[in-house]
Amino acid sequence: MIPILEEAALRTLVTPAIAVRAIREAFRADGEGRTTVPAVINLEIPGARGEFHVKTAHIAGVPHVAVKVASGFYDNPAKGLPSGSGLMALFDAATGLPVALLFDNGYLTDVRTGAAGAVAAEGLAPSTIETVGMIGSGVQARLQIACLRQVRTFARLIAWSPTRARLDRYCDEMRETHGLEVVAADGPEAVCRAADLVVTATPAREPLVRSAWLRAGQHVTAVGSDSPGKQELEAACLARADRVVVDRQAQCAVFGELRAALAAGLALRAAPVELGAVVAGRQPGRTHAGEITIADLTGVGFQDTAIASAAVEKRDGSFFG
Amino acid sequence: MIPILEEAALRTLVTPAIAVRAIREAFRADGEGRTTVPAVINLEIPGARGEFHVKTAHIAGVPHVAVKVASGFYDNPAKGLPSGSGLMALFDAATGLPVALLFDNGYLTDVRTGAAGAVAAEGLAPSTIETVGMIGSGVQARLQIACLRQVRTFARLIAWSPTRARLDRYCDEMRETHGLEVVAADGPEAVCRAADLVVTATPAREPLVRSAWLRAGQHVTAVGSDSPGKQELEAACLARADRVVVDRQAQCAVFGELRAALAAGLALRAAPVELGAVVAGRQPGRTHAGEITIADLTGVGFQDTAIASAAVEKRDGSFFG
Repeated sequence: MIPILEEAALRTLVTPAIAVRAIREAFRADGEGRTTVPAVINLEIPGARGEFHVKTAHIAGVPHVAVKVASGFYDNPAKGLPSGSGLMALFDAATGLPVALLFDNGYLTDVRTGAAGAVAAEGLAPSTIETVGMIGSGVQARLQIACLRQVRTFARLIAWSPTRARLDRYCDEMRETHGLEVVAADGPEAVCRAADLVVTATPAREPLVRSAWLRAGQHVTAVGSDSPGKQELEAACLARADRVVVDRQAQCAVFGELRAALAAGLALRAAPVELGAVVAGRQPGRTHAGEITIADLTGVGFQDTAIASAAVEKRDGSFFG
Repeated sequence: MIPILEEAALRTLVTPAIAVRAIREAFRADGEGRTTVPAVINLEIPGARGEFHVKTAHIAGVPHVAVKVASGFYDNPAKGLPSGSGLMALFDAATGLPVALLFDNGYLTDVRTGAAGAVAAEGLAPSTIETVGMIGSGVQARLQIACLRQVRTFARLIAWSPTRARLDRYCDEMRETHGLEVVAADGPEAVCRAADLVVTATPAREPLVRSAWLRAGQHVTAVGSDSPGKQELEAACLARADRVVVDRQAQCAVFGELRAALAAGLALRAAPVELGAVVAGRQPGRTHAGEITIADLTGVGFQDTAIASAAVEKRDGSFFG
């Protein structure tokens, strides 16, 4: 029988530290031209306000291929069911045989997204950070901090999200879990004004971050946009940045922060480059302390293959050899 | 835990009779515009002579959506492993939640292909058949006969395939299993000359059936071609036919028998129509006894959703209400 790994086991196997290592190597492979990423299947279910998305990718050097099925059914909560669901199937990249089924309830997608934020910060954020700013207070706001701590040391967090009770809960948790000094801000401007590194992790459909609030030396990572209707950064932010890094050009142009900038016809200071090229050393990351940098992350199929393979390699004791 | 259905259970649940009922209704749904069939994912694995294919589809009225992952790794046999592998995951079409995993070792794909041949024959073959001709002696040659018996009564089978021992084994089995009078032919011409209905079920890369061997009143179903390099019928067969029916226009034009006819610039007597339209009564099937008809079947994702859903509905006692 094929082994099944469930969420609790996957959380133990794929810690933020493991996730950052796996996702860093996946972006490096992408920058070195070692990934194959076919177009995603999007299957809309007429009459049910539902959809399925299927992603897969191959990374030369990674021993497995993941096929991820994710569903979103927007009438489920009214039935007492989660709107999102899905599973990942993992196959041997050398033989095609099924290796494992992962019922992660979204954890692997969440942690690979957190890890991509860390990998972006590693290449683009100032080397010394005093204050991290977080816009958002959900699962992703938690994982971004957990992963970021793998690549930067910082003592202070300033956070904002619109529901005060949720924000307070988040701040308490970040204090307790990470021993940070945490401030609940009264709005996104206060976060941007105070932080050396700003992360946006929201489902916003109207921009939350204004260009005028950014300052020299700052890095911003936006991870919330995954469809054409979403936007966290005012388009002018991208025009103001010295450097815009995207996880995948083709995706970010269609449903990342880049979309709004392109739609507005804004001239960027430099053509966006892919994060993989930065990790692989083929494009520069931050080149001096005064730059404003932005990372626009939408989530790419090779991250799923990398994180799912890491889970099984970790279980087998073969992770990174 | 999600239920797992294995090959033995699936063979018991999805008999040829059930498969023909499910696949007939799937084609009817397609002909009535009730299917959604996204483009397939084809992921080639560089350096491994391997590939993954991912198919999914929705049929309005069918309670589940299947996602099928199939792999082909052509160096596997040298390692003592099967070249083909994969699995199907079944989801609730109303909520997106996973319902079952099917480890069918290819059986469901085989039987839905057999059933499509029967559905094509039901609409296109002469109503009275004395002799069925089979070119091929593999799994599909077996399932085509088992499914065909659900829609036509016939007493005689004439079969050919290049390896005599395999052909003899096939003929013996068809005699014993179905009580048919079975003749092993000495070549494909003898099959075509003797049969009222000819089925080709081979991996041929050069045509096996010549146009000159066909005769008025005959129906031919070709099920072997599933990639641009394969071809079972001489292109002139399609030009000679009064009616060409395809399972999916877009697929058959690229990797069905239709491909060679289009590439040769041959004029067909009538534009090909889809099998779904025939089953739904929107296009005629056979209109008189003297017609030559051809069905070009490449396999469509909605067949996978139909057959996988039938398995679980059968298990639950809810198949066809």
